[in-house]
Formats: sequence, C-alpha cells, structure tokens
Amino acid sequence: MPVNLSAPQAHTLLPVKGVELGFAEANIRKPNRKDVLVIKLSEGTRVAGVFTKNQFCAAPVTLCKKHLAAGAEIRALVVNTGNANAGTGEQGMLDAEKTCQALAQLLSQGVEVKANQILPFSTGVILEPLPVDRVVAGLPDCLSNLKSDNWLNAAEAIMTTDIVSKGYSKQIVIDGKTVTITGISKGSGMIHPNMATMLGYVATDAAISQAALEKLIDYAVNRSFNCITVDGDTSTNDSLILMATGQSGISEIQADTAAYESLRDAMTEVATLLAQAIVRDGEGATKFMTIKVEAGRDVEECRQVAYAIAHSPLIKTAFFASDPNLGRILAAIGYAGLDRLDVNNMQLYLGDVLVAEHGGRAQAYEEAQGAAVMAEPEILVRVVLNRGLANAMVWTCDFSYDYVKINADYRS
Amino acid sequence: MPVNLSAPQAHTLLPVKGVELGFAEANIRKPNRKDVLVIKLSEGTRVAGVFTKNQFCAAPVTLCKKHLAAGAEIRALVVNTGNANAGTGEQGMLDAEKTCQALAQLLSQGVEVKANQILPFSTGVILEPLPVDRVVAGLPDCLSNLKSDNWLNAAEAIMTTDIVSKGYSKQIVIDGKTVTITGISKGSGMIHPNMATMLGYVATDAAISQAALEKLIDYAVNRSFNCITVDGDTSTNDSLILMATGQSGISEIQADTAAYESLRDAMTEVATLLAQAIVRDGEGATKFMTIKVEAGRDVEECRQVAYAIAHSPLIKTAFFASDPNLGRILAAIGYAGLDRLDVNNMQLYLGDVLVAEHGGRAQAYEEAQGAAVMAEPEILVRVVLNRGLANAMVWTCDFSYDYVKINADYRS
Repeated sequence: MPVNLSAPQAHTLLPVKGVELGFAEANIRKPNRKDVLVIKLSEGTRVAGVFTKNQFCAAPVTLCKKHLAAGAEIRALVVNTGNANAGTGEQGMLDAEKTCQALAQLLSQGVEVKANQILPFSTGVILEPLPVDRVVAGLPDCLSNLKSDNWLNAAEAIMTTDIVSKGYSKQIVIDGKTVTITGISKGSGMIHPNMATMLGYVATDAAISQAALEKLIDYAVNRSFNCITVDGDTSTNDSLILMATGQSGISEIQADTAAYESLRDAMTEVATLLAQAIVRDGEGATKFMTIKVEAGRDVEECRQVAYAIAHSPLIKTAFFASDPNLGRILAAIGYAGLDRLDVNNMQLYLGDVLVAEHGGRAQAYEEAQGAAVMAEPEILVRVVLNRGLANAMVWTCDFSYDYVKINADYRS
Repeated sequence: MPVNLSAPQAHTLLPVKGVELGFAEANIRKPNRKDVLVIKLSEGTRVAGVFTKNQFCAAPVTLCKKHLAAGAEIRALVVNTGNANAGTGEQGMLDAEKTCQALAQLLSQGVEVKANQILPFSTGVILEPLPVDRVVAGLPDCLSNLKSDNWLNAAEAIMTTDIVSKGYSKQIVIDGKTVTITGISKGSGMIHPNMATMLGYVATDAAISQAALEKLIDYAVNRSFNCITVDGDTSTNDSLILMATGQSGISEIQADTAAYESLRDAMTEVATLLAQAIVRDGEGATKFMTIKVEAGRDVEECRQVAYAIAHSPLIKTAFFASDPNLGRILAAIGYAGLDRLDVNNMQLYLGDVLVAEHGGRAQAYEEAQGAAVMAEPEILVRVVLNRGLANAMVWTCDFSYDYVKINADYRS
C-alpha cells in the first residue's frame, strides 16, 4: 500500500480559471475505465514542458517538443492511458499527429485550432501500435463533459498501475488577488506490460511571461520530479507540463520579482508533493526515504552520492527489512565515484542519530537507535561530506517482495 | 540454487608446483567451519593484484596495495572469513598488520620473512572489529596442514554465503613442458550482515616477468571479474590475485611473445570461469545472462549499454519471470547515456532471434520465439549499435524473490 498517501477528495482539488477537463472511457486497453483525458486551456495560456531524456522516447514526446518549439499557442492537452505509443516508429508519429488533428478539428469552433496547438501524451504498453481510432473516437465524450471541477476525474483518468490517484491544490495571494495552483500526476515506475511513465500536469491562473515560466519549470523540476527514483529506470514517456492561464486578473509576472518567487515557490511545492506521491505509491513501496547529502563540492556530486544510495538494491532491501545496515550505505558512498573523497572526514545520520564517522561506526551509536529510526514508514538518511557548500536531496522507496511480484508475476 | 554450477571435485583442482595451502577452523564468526586460509608461495614467486575501487576500502586492501607497492617478494597470503575488517578505522590497519606479522614470524625458519611479504584478505561482516587474536591463533593450524592438493579445502575456506565452492584448473604446454593453472573464487554479492566481497586467487607454475604478469592481470580482469555484476554494488574488499611460482621449469615468459599469449589466454579462461561462477551463484539467481553489445564507437560505451541492461531491476525481474520484455531492454539502451544514439539504426537479439530494429519490434518477430529463449537457464542478449567497431560483454543474473529474501529477511 502507498506510504502515507491517500487519494485526494474532489473538493480539495480547486478549479483553475481557464482550465477545463473532460474524460472518456474509450476502451483503449481495458473496458470500463477512464482512459482518455482532454485538458482545454483558455486563449492566452502559456505552457512549458520538460520531457524524458531517454533516447527511445515515445512519439508523443517528440511531437510535444516539436509543437512547443513551434511557438503556436497551446489550446489543449490530450492524454491516453493503456498504450504508450513508444517503440512504434513512423506509424507512431502519424498516430500522435492524427490524435492532435482530430482534437484540433473538434475544438475549431469559430476560431480555427491547428494540430500544433495540441500537446499529446500516451502512457501504457510500449512496442504495440496505438489504437488511434479508439483514442479519436473518445474525444467527443471528453469534450462533452468538460468541466473546471473535473480534476479528480482527470487524476483518475491518467492512472495506469497507480494504486491511488494523485492531486494537490494550493492558493496564494499576489497583488491582493487569489491565485490558484492545481496539479495531478501518475507513476509508478515502468511496469508490465511496460506501463511506462511518470506524468505531471500543473496549472495556475496566474499570468506569467513565457521566459519566466520556462525559468520556473527548470527550478521546479530540479527540486521535484528530478529528485525522485523508484527503480532507477527512466521511462520513454516521462513528461511534466506547467500551464498558466492568466485568468486570475493579476498583471503578468516577470522573472526575478517578488511575485515570481511567490508563484515559483508555490508551484514547486505542488510539483514536489506530486513527485513525492509517485514515490509513496512506488511499486511495492512500504517506506518513504529522503536521502539528503550535504556539504559537497557541488550539487552534482551530492546527487551522485544520493542516487548511489537510492539505487542500491542492497540498501533498498535493508530498508524494507527495517535493518539499519550502515555498511551498505557506507559502501554505496564509497563507490559513488567522488574525486578523492576522504571517508574518514564525513558523517552519516539516520534521522537525528549520528551512526557513522571517522570511517566507521560512531562511538556512541547503538543499534537500537538505528533500528528505532528504521521502524518508521518515513526515514531520513543524511550524509555530511564536509568538503564544500552544496546540498542535494533525493526521495525514494524501499524494495520489497511486492516489487518483484509486480514486475515478474503479472502473467499469473 | 546456482545456475548450471556445482562444486568442483578435489581431484579436478590440480596442484600448482610451489603453492601450498592450509586452513583452520578458527571460530572467527561461527564454530566448526573453515575460516582462515594460508596460501604459501615458494621463493621467487611473482604476484600481481587488482582491488576494489570503493573508497571505503577495507584495511587489508590498503595493506595489500602497500605491500605489493613495496616490491618485497610475497611469500604468503592469509585470508579470513567471518569479518571483513572494513569500516574499522586505525584499529583495522593495526589488526591487518598484526596478522601479517604473526604469519611472517611463523614462516621465518632459517630465512627471515617480513610482514610486508604477506598479503592479508578479509571477508565477512563490516563495521565490526576484526577478532585478530582468533585469526592469529588459527595460523599454526593452517601451517600444520599445508598441502599442495588442498585447493578444494581452500575454496571452501573462503566461502561466506556462497552456496557452492568455486574452483577451476587448466593445463597448457609451453616449451614442451606442462604448465598448470588453478584458481578459486568466492562471491556472491554484499549480503548480511554485510558479507562483503568477491575474492579470486589464481596460481600458475609458469615463470613470467613481473612486467608481463602486471600486463596479464589487466588483460584478464577486464575480461572476467570486471565483466560481472550481481546487484551493481561494489564491495569494500573485492580483490583478484595472480601468482606465478616459476616452478614448472619453463624459461621466464616476457610480454607479447607467443608463450605470453598462451599463458594469458589460459589464465583469462580460468579467471572468466571463476568470475562467471560468482554470477551463477549470485544471490537468488535462477538465470545466467550474457549481455553482448557490439559495433559501438568504443568499449566504454558498449559497457555503458551492457551495464544499463544488467543493472535494471525491471529487466532482471522480467528475466526471473522468463518474460521477453523488449520494451524494458530498449528503454535501458535509451537511458544508457550514449551520445547521439540513433535508436532507429540498431538491432536487439534474444539468443539468435532478432526481436527489435528500426526503433521497434522486428516485423517477423513473434513473442513465442522470445519466450522460448527466455525459458532457458542461460540467456544471451545481444545489442548491435551499428556505429563503430568496439564490443563488450557483461554477465549477470536475474532478480528473484530470493534476492529480496536473502537481503531483507536474514534476521528471521
């Protein structure tokens, strides 16, 4: 079961002015489940995105990047689950384009909407052709139930093997006016048959310049979606999209102003909660771990150490067993590949307990202290490198029987 | 159970002239098991070693490197199991030195043997003080049963959580004379409580110059111990040692001669079998996988791709389930980090079956073909990058319930 995570309630996900959401049960892979989502954006909405670095990226990822680069105003997003349209070659690109064209046509009422004003997303099985006709057939249903308070339905419509849906809202006041931020996400690893993908969509009714929004998404993603790992595998379809409709009535926010920082911090907070929710609902997760690496030479080396710890199957299984296995953590620090690391001049903490220093177990440490920390569902591992001023933080989950079960036994 | 691996029989491990082996039951961690081994080398033996790159390396590793660098002739190796003497700070170094001094003194009969003519090794629990007095107390027993045909006992004496002992011999003819090579190894990952370490010892009665032996060990390790991975964790104590006694009566081999190549290939073959045996006996292993990456720009990028595949928990669990999960393998190739990889211009094979090309599933491929390959206990995954002339090969095992069990449930 997810670690300290339950599905949001409908009323906790606040409408964002200028955003309407509609879904369909289009039978993409399984009957009787929401599997197509349209997010319709009011005119003038600014959109920014970051995408997987996997070189086997899916056709819709390639098309999203192309449409964003073209600079035409984005008027809608369309997401299907059940099929990732990845590893599908040229036909995959044609299918993603066809989806955009169909939605653009349906949205062309009075003002023409073009295909490159649509962003497409797919998640699900990879290496199988997208049943594009079923996606397209579902679009009218999506448009017929477009509503601004459909966020919970939207969160459910993008789920694949997630156990619970994921969504958060936050409001802040800028220029005396209320600004709303609402986001949804889905995880939870790449599972069978290749249910690829981490997706995140965060919308606000703030007005913000395109340049400032691009800056904001870099800031937010580096502190949220780029800090989580379930199994170290990067999917073919990972995407995070920020949308700013400008409907709140505040004046347009420029980068590096006080208003920018307020919005940036609030959107980063929502993105962080969405990203952490993916880890909390990681495959087979029973523990939520925060790995904090401090006082390194630069952020990069701090992240190297944090990921070495977060990806070690030995450490992840020890956390599953609530075992304060210091040796495995020290060994991971040792093989993280840092230049001339002085292992005798660092400290390792479990929660608040100093467990290792001077290259070995701390003198005052007793195993019962470590065991008490490890018994909790939320665990902080803190490494102090004592060789610089940089810090980094990574969130991950443990490695349980259920991880193997989910990933190996799906046929049974 | 180990994959296609059983323990050697005593008579298959051939004595190597100039090498005597003796063991003791010294009660290092558990009673009634061989846990100290001495390998005594005749005068004039050449020794070369390669060691873990983990910066948290154990005290005996540091001391081995120091003794080898000092250049004094190595006269004996001493190995204890049950305690890795790692993460033990200054006291650990003193304990390793004390072990060497004690053995040197016992071996000083007529000719004085110095402490820096001994190489010490430890494997077992880390972060606990070495019970050095018990190690030292076991040394007379080791010397009292020194024998040249004690290789099987030696292979058993270095086991920790290995299920079977590991040893191979090979004979070749050089200059009309028979040259013998015998080696032993132990694995099998870093398991509780931190049974660290991969150890390999390969001896020959060939005569070879120190320079040629150093060259040979680099060649051999890059094709054997550096090509295996169980869980991606590098231990604090990994070591491989080559020993050449020169007692076979052949003249001294120099680098880059025909005799060098014969010896090199034979020793590499033994080292490869020893390394593969560690994977076959990997924690919870049910499959033995060979990952071959061909036609890359350089060996480094081929290894990057091979390790991305070999370390992916998603792929390892799919192999456990005998599931030809192509998407996971393609995704791993995609995130391996290769510069401008053209995913549309590569092929993926399972065994002899072409399963993917042109960025997706191969046209003629049917899942039943892949499933047939995956049902075997030995599986070849072959990636052809089509962008250069370099190749690399990695061996690994799958990821089963038992891996989690071994690493999480040891307390029960």
